[in-house]
Amino acid sequence: MIADIDREMERKRVESILVFGDSTVGNPDLRYVVGASLARGGIYVQRKSHDPTLIVSNIDVGSARLGRVRNIRTYSDYGLERLSGKYDRDEARARFYRKIIKDTGASGPIVLAGRNETSNSLLLIDSLRKKGIKVMGEKTPTILEVAKETKERREIEKLREMGKKTSRVVEKTLQFLSKAKPRGTKITLKSKPLTVHAVKRVINGLLAEEGIIAPEDTIFAPGKKSSDPHYDGKGGDIIRTGEPIVFDIFPSEPDGYWHDCTRTYAFGSPQTKLKEMYDAVLEAQTTAVDMVREQVSCSEMMIQVCKLFEKKGYLTVRSLIKGNKEARVRGFMHGLGHGVGLTIGERPYLTLYGKERLRKNSVVTIEPGLYDPNVGGVRIEDIVVVGSPSENLTHLPKDLQI
Amino acid sequence: MIADIDREMERKRVESILVFGDSTVGNPDLRYVVGASLARGGIYVQRKSHDPTLIVSNIDVGSARLGRVRNIRTYSDYGLERLSGKYDRDEARARFYRKIIKDTGASGPIVLAGRNETSNSLLLIDSLRKKGIKVMGEKTPTILEVAKETKERREIEKLREMGKKTSRVVEKTLQFLSKAKPRGTKITLKSKPLTVHAVKRVINGLLAEEGIIAPEDTIFAPGKKSSDPHYDGKGGDIIRTGEPIVFDIFPSEPDGYWHDCTRTYAFGSPQTKLKEMYDAVLEAQTTAVDMVREQVSCSEMMIQVCKLFEKKGYLTVRSLIKGNKEARVRGFMHGLGHGVGLTIGERPYLTLYGKERLRKNSVVTIEPGLYDPNVGGVRIEDIVVVGSPSENLTHLPKDLQI
Repeated sequence: MIADIDREMERKRVESILVFGDSTVGNPDLRYVVGASLARGGIYVQRKSHDPTLIVSNIDVGSARLGRVRNIRTYSDYGLERLSGKYDRDEARARFYRKIIKDTGASGPIVLAGRNETSNSLLLIDSLRKKGIKVMGEKTPTILEVAKETKERREIEKLREMGKKTSRVVEKTLQFLSKAKPRGTKITLKSKPLTVHAVKRVINGLLAEEGIIAPEDTIFAPGKKSSDPHYDGKGGDIIRTGEPIVFDIFPSEPDGYWHDCTRTYAFGSPQTKLKEMYDAVLEAQTTAVDMVREQVSCSEMMIQVCKLFEKKGYLTVRSLIKGNKEARVRGFMHGLGHGVGLTIGERPYLTLYGKERLRKNSVVTIEPGLYDPNVGGVRIEDIVVVGSPSENLTHLPKDLQI
Repeated sequence: MIADIDREMERKRVESILVFGDSTVGNPDLRYVVGASLARGGIYVQRKSHDPTLIVSNIDVGSARLGRVRNIRTYSDYGLERLSGKYDRDEARARFYRKIIKDTGASGPIVLAGRNETSNSLLLIDSLRKKGIKVMGEKTPTILEVAKETKERREIEKLREMGKKTSRVVEKTLQFLSKAKPRGTKITLKSKPLTVHAVKRVINGLLAEEGIIAPEDTIFAPGKKSSDPHYDGKGGDIIRTGEPIVFDIFPSEPDGYWHDCTRTYAFGSPQTKLKEMYDAVLEAQTTAVDMVREQVSCSEMMIQVCKLFEKKGYLTVRSLIKGNKEARVRGFMHGLGHGVGLTIGERPYLTLYGKERLRKNSVVTIEPGLYDPNVGGVRIEDIVVVGSPSENLTHLPKDLQI
């Protein structure tokens, strides 16, 4: 929560934080502290135990007012135009930032945050340091990573809405798929083989109807190639009976909150091996979803799921650590889940190395999977809000067969 | 072009460049040097006058092979798993990067590039510096900004394709709009008032049909509110006869190239003031498009367009510099254009401060506009490839009236 920023600054002995960027799009930390979209970005300055100031372009003042910062100033208030007329871009920027830091009293050890071009940001930081401003690097988790780890009520409301919209897209895609019929080993629709191209077109149309977007595309991966968890399915891929289809969809509002869920489907009777994998993943996934509550250790959840798979004879990430390289391409080869909010991958991380415990109002994916190059992939994924009780935001049945 | 990287390294006395990030999505510099999408990102290392190396996750080796780097290695090759088991995340990363820098011979003054979280990247940089690695900040234009400024043939082909797709979306939206009819001052479709919500739904469906996305949404701004160049049109906004509608659409391929074009429309007879503004913008825009050729000064183009508007009695950015604050909300208040590629705003910049000259195979928007709080906005925008002759990638008529 935003309120954590102050506490984290105290813990890290940081006096001020300055979050900057030239747009909130692609800059989730800036989007987070602003609480609204800014087409030209801005500079957010917060001193410990003080109200923040947001500095934006004249044009973006209206947008800034839709956000959470009350004290809004403009670039002109700190003389950007004058400086830009007098100095080159980098020198003007350095002087502009120094004026902001001085006028807002944001001295002391200061953190510069936001997603920005690394080498040009370093030039700014070096120039501030030369003038005696103590700019600190941050270990992970950064102040903003910790803040973003637990969600406020209005954020959970947005994530809930995204869960509903995404679930509707998946349901309607399934309705479309159910019109297709097996003919021999191939699946046909209106007597033509059903391709990934056709399905993705339907998915994109349904996303558009909901007013949401999939900036990183959608995984609709049929057949053996789905044994690569990141294979997204190419247009010409043909869908066949008995083979798995991994359908992993992760849309967002434009410059807003995300959802992330996965189902695995098969037309006709699944092969025995696939059925066994599916049953194991379903058991792991429902077990893990049931484990989600405050104070549960993230690595412990991951270990439990690994144990469950190992008992049934599957390889896991733990096998890889023990030196079994086969576990790179077979078994349960990725993390159990991750946080979701203004990004599609944030704290907490449910991995073997995840030292943290789940905190109330964190929002996490639970997505165990099994992969076999001779069969394909199986993954089931829901998004859950940590609480008492926890709340599953993905409203979809978990049936393999279409 | 990629080939410029070596020359710029020479000019900037940089021995090596390392571009990094945890995904190519939202990291256009990494996407650019890799030449393909990497779901888990990677590390690109290039020594001056040497072939580059790309280091990726095991899972992403297949994706990396679709790109332009021949020498592909994996994180495991540099011992990331071992380091991650032994040290905390930041220390493991620092040692991992040091090993990469040592093994690839990328010593000497080195630039770390890519869009990344600023404060955590600074921690990495400070730790490399402590071990004697000379990490440099970069003035703008950075090495990669210069490289990206001119496009290769395959990039122009992608941009051409995006121009065709986007133009089709606009044409079909216009076909949809032309079914609506004025009834009194309101525009109705199937006897209901036409809202922005309905139009945006159509636009999103058309984008989906083309397989492209609008991650920053689309501007469809009717009425007086369009006098704010960034007002994007809210769902409930009603479309009225005689008022301007600014339709600015900027879609991209998922993790790929962008297009950006604008048309201004009005139902029924436009108000006189609007018609005058439209004629002035159309004259400015066609004049500026005709000026696009190699070696033309970017600021000179901007000045010419300002002069044209000023002669007709409109305020411009130049009036603002002379202290006329009215020019913040009225007249021609933004730049004439900017480069487009893997981002929607990059070099060259066609502004008063744009010192550069247009280079062959740059791809720029030409988008003059006029704004008046009592009327609304007018903007016309095409994308043009600089050459002899230049090539307009936006294939749309420029008629005000629907």
